Amino acid sequence: MFEARLKSFFEDAGDGTPSARVVRLLRERGTLSATEIVRLTGLAKSTVSMTLAELRRSDIVIEKASSETGRGASVGRPATALMLNPKVGTCVGVLFGLEAIQLIVADVSHRVISDRKVQIEPDYSPAEAAALTRRLIDEAYEEHGLAPEGRLGVGVAVAGPINPIDGRVLRASGVPTWAGTDIRATFGPVLKSPIFADNESNCAAIAEMMWGAAIGVEDFVFFKIDLGVGGAIVNRGHVVRGIAGSAGEFGHMMIDPGGPLCRCGNRGCLELYASARTALADTERRLGRPFDMDGLVALARGGDEPSRRQIAEMGEAAGKGLAIIGTAINPALVVLGGRMPLAGDMLLGPLSESFERHTLVKRAEIAPEARTRFVPGVFTDNDACLGAVGLVLRHHGRPG
Amino acid sequence: MFEARLKSFFEDAGDGTPSARVVRLLRERGTLSATEIVRLTGLAKSTVSMTLAELRRSDIVIEKASSETGRGASVGRPATALMLNPKVGTCVGVLFGLEAIQLIVADVSHRVISDRKVQIEPDYSPAEAAALTRRLIDEAYEEHGLAPEGRLGVGVAVAGPINPIDGRVLRASGVPTWAGTDIRATFGPVLKSPIFADNESNCAAIAEMMWGAAIGVEDFVFFKIDLGVGGAIVNRGHVVRGIAGSAGEFGHMMIDPGGPLCRCGNRGCLELYASARTALADTERRLGRPFDMDGLVALARGGDEPSRRQIAEMGEAAGKGLAIIGTAINPALVVLGGRMPLAGDMLLGPLSESFERHTLVKRAEIAPEARTRFVPGVFTDNDACLGAVGLVLRHHGRPG
Repeated sequence: MFEARLKSFFEDAGDGTPSARVVRLLRERGTLSATEIVRLTGLAKSTVSMTLAELRRSDIVIEKASSETGRGASVGRPATALMLNPKVGTCVGVLFGLEAIQLIVADVSHRVISDRKVQIEPDYSPAEAAALTRRLIDEAYEEHGLAPEGRLGVGVAVAGPINPIDGRVLRASGVPTWAGTDIRATFGPVLKSPIFADNESNCAAIAEMMWGAAIGVEDFVFFKIDLGVGGAIVNRGHVVRGIAGSAGEFGHMMIDPGGPLCRCGNRGCLELYASARTALADTERRLGRPFDMDGLVALARGGDEPSRRQIAEMGEAAGKGLAIIGTAINPALVVLGGRMPLAGDMLLGPLSESFERHTLVKRAEIAPEARTRFVPGVFTDNDACLGAVGLVLRHHGRPG
Repeated sequence: MFEARLKSFFEDAGDGTPSARVVRLLRERGTLSATEIVRLTGLAKSTVSMTLAELRRSDIVIEKASSETGRGASVGRPATALMLNPKVGTCVGVLFGLEAIQLIVADVSHRVISDRKVQIEPDYSPAEAAALTRRLIDEAYEEHGLAPEGRLGVGVAVAGPINPIDGRVLRASGVPTWAGTDIRATFGPVLKSPIFADNESNCAAIAEMMWGAAIGVEDFVFFKIDLGVGGAIVNRGHVVRGIAGSAGEFGHMMIDPGGPLCRCGNRGCLELYASARTALADTERRLGRPFDMDGLVALARGGDEPSRRQIAEMGEAAGKGLAIIGTAINPALVVLGGRMPLAGDMLLGPLSESFERHTLVKRAEIAPEARTRFVPGVFTDNDACLGAVGLVLRHHGRPG
């Protein structure tokens, strides 16, 4: 079969050969011109030409239809946009949330073929998750006529840190029943695919880096303000995982030594002040019915002063945490993810002021290009799941 | 001249040629066997053999005298240890401290030829520093019969962040009169050498990575407890500089929002609690004469309870700061630099306990190999100045 043949080429290609490097680059980037491939691989122009000719002959690399190219079409002859043949393979990304499983199927040209979300009872076990994922994958492949043997891997986003040494979910996880689970051993046999796993914020950072607010940025921090506070650090284009897999757990940085107890067992964690959880509980008590984050923002936009105050206080707390990150890491860019940044200036105004007040290097001391920039994330609703697809595209064929 | 010829070879060699890569590697590592060179460059064995033969013929690479090799000499035929010919070039490292200038001259085989420290009036200007450095360099070169034209560069360690975009010292510097100084423009013409500058903690981290407690460790945090608190982050073998050059300024992370005012203008900075400054001032008031950090430690060792308490409290505060770093970055290794760690368990006991109490992932949850290790630095007295030499060895011939 065409798919199986290509897939095997894809997997067997040694790391160092020019065709493996070009294929890997296209897998990571989606669409590129030959000139960009020369620049990004560092290979000689002639080598790239030869390699591309070969890859196009064997139908692994194809030209993107010109109507999709867009850029530069009016300036002389447009550069040919090249991409992997979608038939080369498909990838699956799956996000295990607190009460839902999201599944995205994409092909190696970075086209999303299917995106579904299904509810599941809270505290579901890893085995239940694996069985449901298997069913969702089978359904999606059947519905879209995809060949299961063309599946390159499944990226798994988990709501907690994964220890890179043994591949197990740490206790400090959003889904406590998953503590100690070996993701690969649990999901590999059921899904019959190579498994690539990371925690949801690391995945979200990968999505923003590959397709979102941090394209082309090698050093940035992803900072999520949602029902929890989390994040990820990207340095030189790689997610910093940490020795136990818990790098980027910004929500549990201590910002007040005398603060209240956190679910993690420590005191005064950032998440207690900067997440929406407390504000939503307060609002429910105050108004007698439950609110989600969008509801809270709508209240505030409607002029409800207590909600405005709560959102401002969340921004101020987040700014304190970001100031610590600014002092310690001094990132070029902070991508603000999660639903709360959708509140806009009500949150971001106090956040910026608080960041500026608490961080070491003040704006006035440095030229604009040396200041940390803040931008909202692009994929509020599906960053982690898209990033799980990205895990497969970035890591397929690499160790780990 | 031999030196000048070699130096020009050294500088002109393109980045990508095998000989440039071998020379760079030996410059960074000091001494290596051919097998290690193959592994670390990723070049073919035959290419390395040919390149080494060529470099040895032209006397750029030499064999290390076998008495110095040490390792593995008893197991069969020992691997030949190769190094750069010391005549290929010399490097200077200079540290501008608050009241002293330290200068180290070394050759490209990593041998220290000269190490001097001279006092200078506090608040000296960059121009005074440049003139004095020039004199110290000339004296050292004359005393040791070194050819000035063999000098590859001068590494400069400054007590404050340097903005990598414009090469200027930020206001947040230990030597306030240096704010805004363009290090290269100030020192280059006077010292007549290429200048490589970074802040002292980044330099110290480089020294620990090249020769000290972090050899072979690609991801670690350097954390200094001294009259101030500072540090550096090393990721994938590179010092994380940050967009404004201020990454690793751990002393100014806020650990108490209601804390006292810091010299930086913020409140509750870690440095206020974890540095020796307050303890020394208190001890002077209490005992009626000034103490330095060694004096404080000696008092404590002698059974003086207030000093023991102060050192324990410093450790506890440092542990809180390190817990934030642990939660955010989760490093494999923390190298504890500065003079206070010389207090040993009196400081390190409370530090470890406090780290464990305040960090997210607890020891009991993870296997020993996933725990952050703490080790004292190796170069308490001259880490930053040695690291400034390392700056030249690591960066010479590279942009920036």
